[in-house]
Amino acid sequence: MIPVIEKRTLVKTAVFLQACRREETAYTPIWLMRQAGRYMPEYQAIRAQYGMLEVMQTPELAAEVTLQPINAFGLDAAIIFSDILPPLIGMGLDLEFVKGEGPLIHNPVTSTADIERLRTPSAAEHMQPTLDAIRLAAAELTPRGIPLIGFCGAPFTLASYAIEGGGSKNYAKTKALMYTEPAAWDQLMRKLATVQADYLLAQVEAGASALQAFDSWAGLALGVKDYVKYIQPYNKLLFEKAAQAGAPTINFSTGTAAYLGEVAACGGDVIGVDWRLPLDVAWAKIGYDRAIQGNLDPVALLTPWPVLKEKVDDVLARANGRAGHIFNLGHGIFPNVPVDNVRRLVDYVHEATG
Amino acid sequence: MIPVIEKRTLVKTAVFLQACRREETAYTPIWLMRQAGRYMPEYQAIRAQYGMLEVMQTPELAAEVTLQPINAFGLDAAIIFSDILPPLIGMGLDLEFVKGEGPLIHNPVTSTADIERLRTPSAAEHMQPTLDAIRLAAAELTPRGIPLIGFCGAPFTLASYAIEGGGSKNYAKTKALMYTEPAAWDQLMRKLATVQADYLLAQVEAGASALQAFDSWAGLALGVKDYVKYIQPYNKLLFEKAAQAGAPTINFSTGTAAYLGEVAACGGDVIGVDWRLPLDVAWAKIGYDRAIQGNLDPVALLTPWPVLKEKVDDVLARANGRAGHIFNLGHGIFPNVPVDNVRRLVDYVHEATG
Repeated sequence: MIPVIEKRTLVKTAVFLQACRREETAYTPIWLMRQAGRYMPEYQAIRAQYGMLEVMQTPELAAEVTLQPINAFGLDAAIIFSDILPPLIGMGLDLEFVKGEGPLIHNPVTSTADIERLRTPSAAEHMQPTLDAIRLAAAELTPRGIPLIGFCGAPFTLASYAIEGGGSKNYAKTKALMYTEPAAWDQLMRKLATVQADYLLAQVEAGASALQAFDSWAGLALGVKDYVKYIQPYNKLLFEKAAQAGAPTINFSTGTAAYLGEVAACGGDVIGVDWRLPLDVAWAKIGYDRAIQGNLDPVALLTPWPVLKEKVDDVLARANGRAGHIFNLGHGIFPNVPVDNVRRLVDYVHEATG
Repeated sequence: MIPVIEKRTLVKTAVFLQACRREETAYTPIWLMRQAGRYMPEYQAIRAQYGMLEVMQTPELAAEVTLQPINAFGLDAAIIFSDILPPLIGMGLDLEFVKGEGPLIHNPVTSTADIERLRTPSAAEHMQPTLDAIRLAAAELTPRGIPLIGFCGAPFTLASYAIEGGGSKNYAKTKALMYTEPAAWDQLMRKLATVQADYLLAQVEAGASALQAFDSWAGLALGVKDYVKYIQPYNKLLFEKAAQAGAPTINFSTGTAAYLGEVAACGGDVIGVDWRLPLDVAWAKIGYDRAIQGNLDPVALLTPWPVLKEKVDDVLARANGRAGHIFNLGHGIFPNVPVDNVRRLVDYVHEATG
């Protein structure tokens, strides 16, 4: 039994959503990318019994893992436990999470014929377990006034996994295809944008109150000229469609510090930034007509509290109380972070800004 | 028998050295990072018989491999065949190049005591094979008027290998030490800068006509604030000392597009840039009082000639004939590049600018 939830009740009260809309908030909201993760013993206990994909594809488990950090810390938003890659399965790719090695796609895209063959299923057709997990998690979160974030991978980052067959150091195959077969690239990116946009809309239908697109590898792979030519049109498409859901959208990328203006031009109510520029410099580049999310260096959580506190203070000082700052890391939390550092971080951000 | 060479005869005639000094040149000089490498069958033939470290540490082999791309293509400079990591061996680290996996350090630096223990040998004490290889290669190159580039790793990039024990995705251990133990970090970086500076000076003594420091991972790991605090002072030290050799110095880094001004402030007659900003934008940020080296995306060499040519034309158009441009890739050449693309690239750059 998957309950139907009254998601709209969240929108009016949650500090996180107020910040997404650049409204004044009682304190600076905070959540952490990969907040449901290996650094938590509760998470490890689940993963000791179930594989990565199994947890993602079992609504009760995914919802449980989603709630773990919410129950442990005073975070201002939950994010549905999943990964950016499972939607590639529905498109026809054979995805496996190999223990200790990360994702592996057994039949990567190597030709235009492979791109032709990629399916574009609706979210209901292939992502139902995650949509059900969202319903379950939202049913728990809504009464507590905590918004749930839905998410997807942005087209380029997904394309890079689809073509490289896993992680990559240099994105050589992806970029070679992009440079050499522009029509095939366009088709691939449109298919990815279409599937992801539909998935984002379905997540809001299921109970997500905000949406984030992860373009994790855009800036590591591409310079500004290529970003504008080969990524921006498809990210625009994604954010235009996602905006129809009426939920705030977060446009997150890394390695794009040199061209944040072009990133912001893709859309998103909130621009998520990595740690490579100070928050004030990044925000000035993005423009104050957007909210900003970030940007503590994830490594800071591996340092003793006085060092960590100094870095948190710096981020907060640079945000300078301006409406529209959501505190987060610049990328996902590391597996070996001490739980106590997370607790102190969350509490401190609330205390220092409240 | 290692011959003594008359290296100074090179300085007056080579187009590459003229470009380093921002003098007008008859054409745009070109060399390629990792130009002696796996894409060449001649190189593979050597590596089929000898391990990576063995080639580097046998002067005759290292010199032979250095000359291979010079004999195959009309390149304007040679670079001594080695790697940035062997100097760590002399400092006390147990380095191995593991086939298919890259470098591995069996006793990485994990404590301040480890840093205390690191030795700071003179180049003659620990890098003699490479210095001998430089003598051998320069003896061949000098009569042909081709300059030989000596090089080293910049302190941060070496520190990251020393601490992580190999390559890293997130530099978490390096940054945690840097943030947590500033005095130990200072000691480590000073030791590395000292050893590398001595090594650079010795390379010029042995016959190198120019020097490059590779800070390959600086920008992937650190934002601008940390770069200025934890890297810049030591790179300044390195370039100040290296300048005493009287040979042009090249300051190369990647991922630093967002703060090229701070990179240039470290020193170097030439700033080597990756492909993430167009060459004209990068040069404007660096300032025209420096030469610039770059910045073709290495992936371009995997594409058919019309696509490759378009990208080369773009780099050349953005250099706009300004004195002080050295054509190069934005990072090392890939192992699977077709040899014919390299030949066409080198010839085309000369023809298009001559």
